[in-house]
Amino acid sequence: MLAMPIPTTVCGLVDPLEDPVPGVGTYEDFNTIDWVREKSKDRDRHREITNKSRQSTVNLLHSVSDAFSGWLLMLLVGLLSGALAGGIDIAAHWMTAMKEGVCVVHFWYNHEHCCWASNETTFQERHHCPQWQSWAELITGTSEGAFAYIVNFLMYIFWALLFSFLAVALVRAFAPYACGSGIPEIKTILSGFIIRGYLGKWTLMIKIITLVLAVSSGLSLGKEGPLVHVACCCANILCHLFTKYRKNEAKRREVLSAAAAVGVSVAFGAPIGGVLFSLEEVSYYFPLKTLWRSFFAALVAAFTLRSINPFGNSQLVLFYVEFHAPWHLVELAPFILLGIFGGLWGALFIKANIAWCRRRKTTRLGHYPVMEVLVVTALTALIAYPNIYTRMSGAELISELFNDCSRLDSSQLCGYQQVSLCVGNTLPDRPAGPGLYTALWQLALALVFKMMITVITFGMKVPSGLFIPSMAVGAITGRLLGVGMEQLAYYNHDSIIFKGWCSQGADCITPGLYAMVGAAACLGGVTRMTVSLVVIMFELTGGLEYIVPLMAATMTSKWVADAFGREGIYEAHIRLNGYPFLEPKEEFEHSSLAVDVMRPRRSDPALAVLTQEGMTVGEVEALVESTHYSGFPVVVSQQSQRLVGFVLRRDLLISIDNGRKRQEGVVSSSQVVFTEHTPSQAPDAPPPLRLRGIMDLSPFTVTDHTPMDITVDIFRKLGLRQCLVTHNGRLLGIITKKDILKHMAQITNRDPDSILFN
Amino acid sequence: MLAMPIPTTVCGLVDPLEDPVPGVGTYEDFNTIDWVREKSKDRDRHREITNKSRQSTVNLLHSVSDAFSGWLLMLLVGLLSGALAGGIDIAAHWMTAMKEGVCVVHFWYNHEHCCWASNETTFQERHHCPQWQSWAELITGTSEGAFAYIVNFLMYIFWALLFSFLAVALVRAFAPYACGSGIPEIKTILSGFIIRGYLGKWTLMIKIITLVLAVSSGLSLGKEGPLVHVACCCANILCHLFTKYRKNEAKRREVLSAAAAVGVSVAFGAPIGGVLFSLEEVSYYFPLKTLWRSFFAALVAAFTLRSINPFGNSQLVLFYVEFHAPWHLVELAPFILLGIFGGLWGALFIKANIAWCRRRKTTRLGHYPVMEVLVVTALTALIAYPNIYTRMSGAELISELFNDCSRLDSSQLCGYQQVSLCVGNTLPDRPAGPGLYTALWQLALALVFKMMITVITFGMKVPSGLFIPSMAVGAITGRLLGVGMEQLAYYNHDSIIFKGWCSQGADCITPGLYAMVGAAACLGGVTRMTVSLVVIMFELTGGLEYIVPLMAATMTSKWVADAFGREGIYEAHIRLNGYPFLEPKEEFEHSSLAVDVMRPRRSDPALAVLTQEGMTVGEVEALVESTHYSGFPVVVSQQSQRLVGFVLRRDLLISIDNGRKRQEGVVSSSQVVFTEHTPSQAPDAPPPLRLRGIMDLSPFTVTDHTPMDITVDIFRKLGLRQCLVTHNGRLLGIITKKDILKHMAQITNRDPDSILFN
Repeated sequence: MLAMPIPTTVCGLVDPLEDPVPGVGTYEDFNTIDWVREKSKDRDRHREITNKSRQSTVNLLHSVSDAFSGWLLMLLVGLLSGALAGGIDIAAHWMTAMKEGVCVVHFWYNHEHCCWASNETTFQERHHCPQWQSWAELITGTSEGAFAYIVNFLMYIFWALLFSFLAVALVRAFAPYACGSGIPEIKTILSGFIIRGYLGKWTLMIKIITLVLAVSSGLSLGKEGPLVHVACCCANILCHLFTKYRKNEAKRREVLSAAAAVGVSVAFGAPIGGVLFSLEEVSYYFPLKTLWRSFFAALVAAFTLRSINPFGNSQLVLFYVEFHAPWHLVELAPFILLGIFGGLWGALFIKANIAWCRRRKTTRLGHYPVMEVLVVTALTALIAYPNIYTRMSGAELISELFNDCSRLDSSQLCGYQQVSLCVGNTLPDRPAGPGLYTALWQLALALVFKMMITVITFGMKVPSGLFIPSMAVGAITGRLLGVGMEQLAYYNHDSIIFKGWCSQGADCITPGLYAMVGAAACLGGVTRMTVSLVVIMFELTGGLEYIVPLMAATMTSKWVADAFGREGIYEAHIRLNGYPFLEPKEEFEHSSLAVDVMRPRRSDPALAVLTQEGMTVGEVEALVESTHYSGFPVVVSQQSQRLVGFVLRRDLLISIDNGRKRQEGVVSSSQVVFTEHTPSQAPDAPPPLRLRGIMDLSPFTVTDHTPMDITVDIFRKLGLRQCLVTHNGRLLGIITKKDILKHMAQITNRDPDSILFN
Repeated sequence: MLAMPIPTTVCGLVDPLEDPVPGVGTYEDFNTIDWVREKSKDRDRHREITNKSRQSTVNLLHSVSDAFSGWLLMLLVGLLSGALAGGIDIAAHWMTAMKEGVCVVHFWYNHEHCCWASNETTFQERHHCPQWQSWAELITGTSEGAFAYIVNFLMYIFWALLFSFLAVALVRAFAPYACGSGIPEIKTILSGFIIRGYLGKWTLMIKIITLVLAVSSGLSLGKEGPLVHVACCCANILCHLFTKYRKNEAKRREVLSAAAAVGVSVAFGAPIGGVLFSLEEVSYYFPLKTLWRSFFAALVAAFTLRSINPFGNSQLVLFYVEFHAPWHLVELAPFILLGIFGGLWGALFIKANIAWCRRRKTTRLGHYPVMEVLVVTALTALIAYPNIYTRMSGAELISELFNDCSRLDSSQLCGYQQVSLCVGNTLPDRPAGPGLYTALWQLALALVFKMMITVITFGMKVPSGLFIPSMAVGAITGRLLGVGMEQLAYYNHDSIIFKGWCSQGADCITPGLYAMVGAAACLGGVTRMTVSLVVIMFELTGGLEYIVPLMAATMTSKWVADAFGREGIYEAHIRLNGYPFLEPKEEFEHSSLAVDVMRPRRSDPALAVLTQEGMTVGEVEALVESTHYSGFPVVVSQQSQRLVGFVLRRDLLISIDNGRKRQEGVVSSSQVVFTEHTPSQAPDAPPPLRLRGIMDLSPFTVTDHTPMDITVDIFRKLGLRQCLVTHNGRLLGIITKKDILKHMAQITNRDPDSILFN
């Protein structure tokens, strides 16, 4: 069966003198765009503007403004995304704090601001001040005792359930596309798929509100991934201000690629890392011009965010780390261990999460999304509340784990035994005290809890990012290993391993660095990011010296995870949802030929073709009606099968309809003519319907002997939607992107019908 | 006339059971490779190894070692390049110092080491110690007076002339490819051109030696660009250790792309910047796998270099800068001014340098390269010696200009009037003193001199990089402007411009930052680098806060320079040399169709084609003899002109020759058969020569109506060498890469015959 479902645009081929029929050259929802035609269309547009610019000053100004509109758009995207990210940060902080108490003087202050504003606090006690009252204090007047604890606990659960209910209800009611992280869909959109409304204003608004709610509800999810979606929505909406980007799907995707960079830039305060993330992870078509522009937009966004200063530390980055202790070559062994852990966790997480999501899709579980969210929220709140490391937000946890103990730090994590021999500002390795042991236990429990709950949280019908939970798992593991190494070094500083570089009283092991390496390893295992991850981490620390540990861990993590399955979490979700995504990174390894993949197969009826003359309107309509193909090749004649061009179902129907309505005398017996010159016909025949204008005169062809790896390469690099197959100059069949995806699914023993869309 | 000069490989199409004829599928010198076939060949190879790996443990090990050979190769490239760069640095330092004097105790110490080794020096006087004697001291016993000055001067000129003579003589005698920066040629090679020996071991050895000599001779050139060439040579030589890379031109180019990143990484100590340089500036085909590998190689190289520690400061970077003073928004105006200057200088430099190089190419000047080098060296030495800022090496000058004045600094540049009000560690803006005025004068003279001499230096027959001279011009300008701004701020701190952010006694202006921005602007104007340049500069300072000034300047510089001509210096040199380079960044703007560009033109004789059967060996030989085309389409029959495949001249000649020698009965009257089944022929006819094996069964085709912008896109993205043109299924003509380049030259009113090679 010949499936050719994707309409292409014919722009640049329509006679410019004729007014094109409205609707010709646009796409339907859930269809794939034709990159070659879109880019050609843009070049035509550009050429026209350039030619006109010589005629008058107004046109020249238009040409200049057109050239700079891309930069202006980038500036706007950066400003808007930075501002929105800042707003989200502030709101999420405030609402997260609200679960525990309220600022009685200024209720709109969050916990930290409340106590800053009060002058009665010292630095050590910066989290306790009379202005900030827990719910127990407000309601019962005391914050001590079991009753107060229970009141606080109940209020915590109440707020958590309220927030998560609002989040899921809003998503369901107004914008179903606002759920999830959005990165799999953005990858698919960037590869040339159309999902109307996915990047629209409703999605943006609801995503922002529900993201704040979901993060504040204490669920094990992050806001970093969804920020990419938010930035892309901003970019898509702002594209409507500029004709150049509004009307051209390929140009708009350039802007969206840059917006993905902006999203990561504001999420982590890492503009270069963001650009590399866009290049490595999400983008499909990333010309150098986009590289430069996305860098600009990412910087603008990062600085906008800094001027809003939501983290309250005047730093650009989310997790500001300031340690400069060197690491020793021996430590590469634990770093690589962390990499192995990250890889294993990544592979396991993907398998478990996909299994759970498939279950949600196929069983009755999927029919009760609100109930699911409420149950998971209640479960999370119940288990998380008693443990301080799970009660605090993921970002706070990571921040605490990344940081080193300085003497001022009153955190449990720094509950070492006090040893008096301190030299200068550095703190030597010390034996663990009871505080630290408690912290380690709590961390271990938090680790198990986070690992379990994240699997069922990611994929629920609320906005949910994976970066922070994955990093939290890695950071906890890393910190545990780091403290273990530290104690090992303290008690065995004369053993072979530590001798020579770690004498007594020296600061040799930095547990914070281990946490960082662990976080990178786990995030790498889940997403399979490599360079961009290392660069993001590099931007967090600003020190080139930690690149080697980070790289060793992410590399190991990727290799280990790849051994269990080549797909990252985003690709796995793309496949789960059946999006038509042709992975640009994977090589096509099979040795089939184009003739094995093309339709019609040997047993199928012959290819449905139009002839360039001789068919009547009625015959064409009957052919179109009797098939569901999205396009038809045009040949010289049925017996020669020499290819002339390609015409799309959508364009054909619109044009015939238009011809019947507008053009006098066009009836079912009128001839349809695709040639340049009207053929001679009987004098009493009705006037012919000339359709050369809607025919694509340069369809792509390959021969039947072309190896499929080359064909796939052509599809990927040129962004094709379909390609005709010839043998010795005769038309033989057709290959569409969907045929290729089905063929690839077949090769890997998957269900070829899992590719859902056209 | 049909020109189709580039042989393609037919790998993957030869029957695997037949032993391929030796020589089939390789390239001749100065030809273009076919990326599609090369990649297909590699996939075939990979598939075979993967299939075999299931058979036995040995094969499995082979498969694993094959998978990791890329990483191993990267490691080796990083180690070797880092070590060579370290060696070059040390040798160049020593020989540069030798022009002025010698270390009498350890002659193999350079100036700095000599005085470090001596314990008698203080930090202020670290450049003066009894162990280090100038030539005057050695010869006449005194370093004072006019006579000593003249002796030193003469010795300086003597060494400079000796070094430059040796450099040019060695290049001419042993490796003519060792001259220049090598980046234009590497760009061309990476785009798929073959220049045998350009990356060979002789070129590497001679380039290293002559690079040290040329840098030491005091000519206005840098070693940073040639380091890219050195790294690429290392990579190319190391490729011979691995079959995977030795035999495949496309795979080898992936390694070379990574090597370009390594080159910049060791030149500046900026691994991330190096990777982006390779991506943005030199690479043609840069898959994500290469991104990750080149990052790895760049890091290995940077750390190898650091462990050699040639800069003597334990820092990874060439120009280590440590200032953290903030900049104010008002300062963007002078930064943009620097950008404009950089753009103007870049455009002017390119025009002047190309004019001078064209003169060298076309007039008798080019016949005396040794004399030219000696004259320029003498001129440089004569003018440079009296001025300390020109006498010192370019890298030293830039380093001095980038750094801020701290109280210890005894340099003339910090000859401010002493003002007592100093708060803490920061040094407030101070009025300029006489020392600074002298320095400014000398800098202005140095600027004029550098601008002039660089134009005639770049392109001489010695290894010469452009990065350092360009940066020096910018750094001088920036420093001058910075000091000017500083004085302006000091004397007008109450004016509107400075009020509010620059009170008296504050440190508002950092002249070192201006030097840095100026350097980036000038380098950007000359090379048109953008992101990579900003990232390199970011890695030098490690502070995200200076990215905005740097970006403003490089962006302005690129726009201003682009207004005078779209080409950077490397593209201009590529065009000057007539390399067949299809610029991947520029859009093809003209509205021609494939039929306008293809050969044969309307007035030309018909396309020379072979028929799939019916031609004799003699007829084929006659056709090949009578034309000079590199390949011939094979059609079903002369009158149908339906395309079957494409066969290369080189393969055809080799196969016929082989057939005549090896296959019994093949004579001139034997039929040449390209079909699968041998046609029936008279019983007494000689046995046919079957050549289906050497025919490419999947030639690329476009229709005659395909717009040229799409065709150019296909050529670029797929890396094609030729493409056949059809009309309604009939073969019409052919388009080669050279045809496209000629067409583009014609459009821009250049001489189409300036494209020299095939």
